Amino acid sequence: MTTLELAGLVTDTSPREITAEAMTAAKRSFLNWLGVALGAAQHPLIDKLLEHTAAVGGAPQASVLARATKTDLLTAAMINGTASHIFDYDDTFLDTILHPSAPVAPVVLALAEWHGLGGRAMLEAFIIGVEVEQRIAQVVYPSHYDRGWHITGSVGGFGAATAAARMMGLNAEQLVMALGMAATQPVGLREMFGTHTKPLHPGIAAANGLRSAMLAALGVTSSTRSIEAPRGFAQVTSEQPKLERLIRGWGQSWRITANSYKPFPCGVVIHPIIDGMARLRAEHGIDPTEVSAIELAVHPLVLELTGKTAPRDGLEAKFSAYHCAAVTLLDGWAGLAQFRDERVNSPDVIQLRQLVRATPDPAIAEDQARVAVVRHDGTRAEVWVEHCIGSKDNPMTDDQLDRKFMDVTSGVISPSSATALIGAVRSLDEAPDLATLLALTRP
Amino acid sequence: MTTLELAGLVTDTSPREITAEAMTAAKRSFLNWLGVALGAAQHPLIDKLLEHTAAVGGAPQASVLARATKTDLLTAAMINGTASHIFDYDDTFLDTILHPSAPVAPVVLALAEWHGLGGRAMLEAFIIGVEVEQRIAQVVYPSHYDRGWHITGSVGGFGAATAAARMMGLNAEQLVMALGMAATQPVGLREMFGTHTKPLHPGIAAANGLRSAMLAALGVTSSTRSIEAPRGFAQVTSEQPKLERLIRGWGQSWRITANSYKPFPCGVVIHPIIDGMARLRAEHGIDPTEVSAIELAVHPLVLELTGKTAPRDGLEAKFSAYHCAAVTLLDGWAGLAQFRDERVNSPDVIQLRQLVRATPDPAIAEDQARVAVVRHDGTRAEVWVEHCIGSKDNPMTDDQLDRKFMDVTSGVISPSSATALIGAVRSLDEAPDLATLLALTRP
Repeated sequence: MTTLELAGLVTDTSPREITAEAMTAAKRSFLNWLGVALGAAQHPLIDKLLEHTAAVGGAPQASVLARATKTDLLTAAMINGTASHIFDYDDTFLDTILHPSAPVAPVVLALAEWHGLGGRAMLEAFIIGVEVEQRIAQVVYPSHYDRGWHITGSVGGFGAATAAARMMGLNAEQLVMALGMAATQPVGLREMFGTHTKPLHPGIAAANGLRSAMLAALGVTSSTRSIEAPRGFAQVTSEQPKLERLIRGWGQSWRITANSYKPFPCGVVIHPIIDGMARLRAEHGIDPTEVSAIELAVHPLVLELTGKTAPRDGLEAKFSAYHCAAVTLLDGWAGLAQFRDERVNSPDVIQLRQLVRATPDPAIAEDQARVAVVRHDGTRAEVWVEHCIGSKDNPMTDDQLDRKFMDVTSGVISPSSATALIGAVRSLDEAPDLATLLALTRP
Repeated sequence: MTTLELAGLVTDTSPREITAEAMTAAKRSFLNWLGVALGAAQHPLIDKLLEHTAAVGGAPQASVLARATKTDLLTAAMINGTASHIFDYDDTFLDTILHPSAPVAPVVLALAEWHGLGGRAMLEAFIIGVEVEQRIAQVVYPSHYDRGWHITGSVGGFGAATAAARMMGLNAEQLVMALGMAATQPVGLREMFGTHTKPLHPGIAAANGLRSAMLAALGVTSSTRSIEAPRGFAQVTSEQPKLERLIRGWGQSWRITANSYKPFPCGVVIHPIIDGMARLRAEHGIDPTEVSAIELAVHPLVLELTGKTAPRDGLEAKFSAYHCAAVTLLDGWAGLAQFRDERVNSPDVIQLRQLVRATPDPAIAEDQARVAVVRHDGTRAEVWVEHCIGSKDNPMTDDQLDRKFMDVTSGVISPSSATALIGAVRSLDEAPDLATLLALTRP
């Protein structure tokens, strides 16, 4: 189970081995990635990165999303990768807590733009980059994460290097060298959570991986055993690595098909409550003004992690089951708008959240909840959430992903551009190049 | 013992706290660094890095040594930092095996050039950058290195960030942010030894540290406890970190004064033999043609690590005590020329090395050797090396450093430029800017 074998599998994989199921999953992942990246593209952190970029220069090769700016491939990958992780709203492999797209998608997008490549080649590289990234995550998880590595950054470079190598047509020997250079530059301590540096992790990993592939193409050498060697990546950053995960069953089922998406921009344990409240409103036609009590029966972790009864701002509201229940009943959904400071402090939200009673119930699983409202007339309406939206057993539908895309990109691009982008991503595997898609991302 | 306290010490240190002893050591370290960086500046790896740089662009801000090229600050730091580690001939803190200058010197040089700063400010930043780098190395050594981290790369970013922050006038709060970004990007697995990626480690660390300082200056945030936190650098990359080393005794003795230099471009355990053979020839006027036997009594590690009796090329010769003894007796010294493939395969060298008998002796320390020759007439000449050149107790003299500088830079710059450069570095603390020095580095 070696780096060499892995590289051989990557370069030997022919386009026809990429299943339709994987291609569909890749387009869903790319759409979700593009949405959260576009949504955060006007964030002050991106302003700072662009200011830095202006100071050091770089050839105008690839677009910075939602900006009228091109920069060099490495920097574009870094900035777009960072943007996509700013909201903590990107995709997740639930078994490793890896957010796979953030370090890989910006690399394939930059290379496709610069080299004028088609959508299908880009998505194939994306699928295979994510495959390698997640396999290496599975090798080192959980001890790697437990020790303090932010796995999205520390493993992301492998995915970026692989995807770039695939798009640049590197052979297996060159890919091994690229993986070696990626291995030697893991990015990301969990200590950085809560700071700008957290979203920088996948951004820097994207650039590192891309540079590794570019240097490998020029003949720069590294170890041929960077993952499995006694002083290689797996041993240095984890305990008892599961090296068999590197290559076992390659091509039988592409890992991207198991990717999951976050339906709501808040702590994942609250998601069943939001799902339930949205259904209560939609299915039972609840009028918030007639509500006298809201009852939540939840997994015990919910109150432990998200028990804030009186959040003061949007950030605190992401950790308040009370806010989430109330605002969803009022607005019918919980998107970015429901976590703006103004909305959190709206009188109708504050009034309604005070009616919420939450009860922990050990019989309820993490993706489940029972939510109910009692009306002033004494009647009661209840919804049982068996598996909430976005969980393993109830993945987000295309409609839900579209709704999320419209929500996160609002204020950055026009609704008509957003709608057109959804269409462009859905047919991306037929696009001869990225020109149409990129034009729609400009504000 | 916190990152905050360390940053406060750095920014509170006034120029007058930098002792004359430290300034002298800094100039010696800088000269040694500049020599090995210039010497390798025409290496094929540097060609590849320049090809890559041409592909992605960058503003012409700082010089690539011994090339008619300027590139952006980050890339210049990366390339010059890489060059200085290609020969494995740079400086070392013997207690941590850290090569301190490679990640720091290229950063202060690039910033001094771009901002038109004077030599003294540059050397002060160099001293303080090396101080922080070595202190953090002392916190995590030896478990960090034992686990597989190439400490020069993995800790080098802290030195680069500190030196850059000092030159850019960052305050303590900004420096803490820069250190956080450096902490989250350790570079360097020991598995890469023997490949191009090894010298890339300090080069990338230099660029990472510089970028960290530049982003911190723009207000990018990171953890305030990046070194000491439970999921911070020290805990994630080492066991039982000695956090007291971070700040204890700050300013009492600058660590750069304990820096050591490699007199010979080969395995350090062979150095006493070369020292002894050079003295045999110089002090006893040995004529190699009259030698019938060469006898070496050495520390037992010598034969274990460098026991190759018939090296085939320059690389193998670096691990051959036999070659080193013979070639030094013939040439009077062992510089780069004595490890060229042609010299290793010269008939006179091959003939003489076959006369070498090496005996391990547990009573002999690592920096000691007894070397002797027996002449055809039966007479014998012997030298005892108590502490070899370059060891802790016998640091290289200025003359020896100059000789090394002339040797490593030969073929890259003219001897007259090299001589002038030695003078320029020796008065670097009085130079109003780096223009004169940089002009001399151009081929």
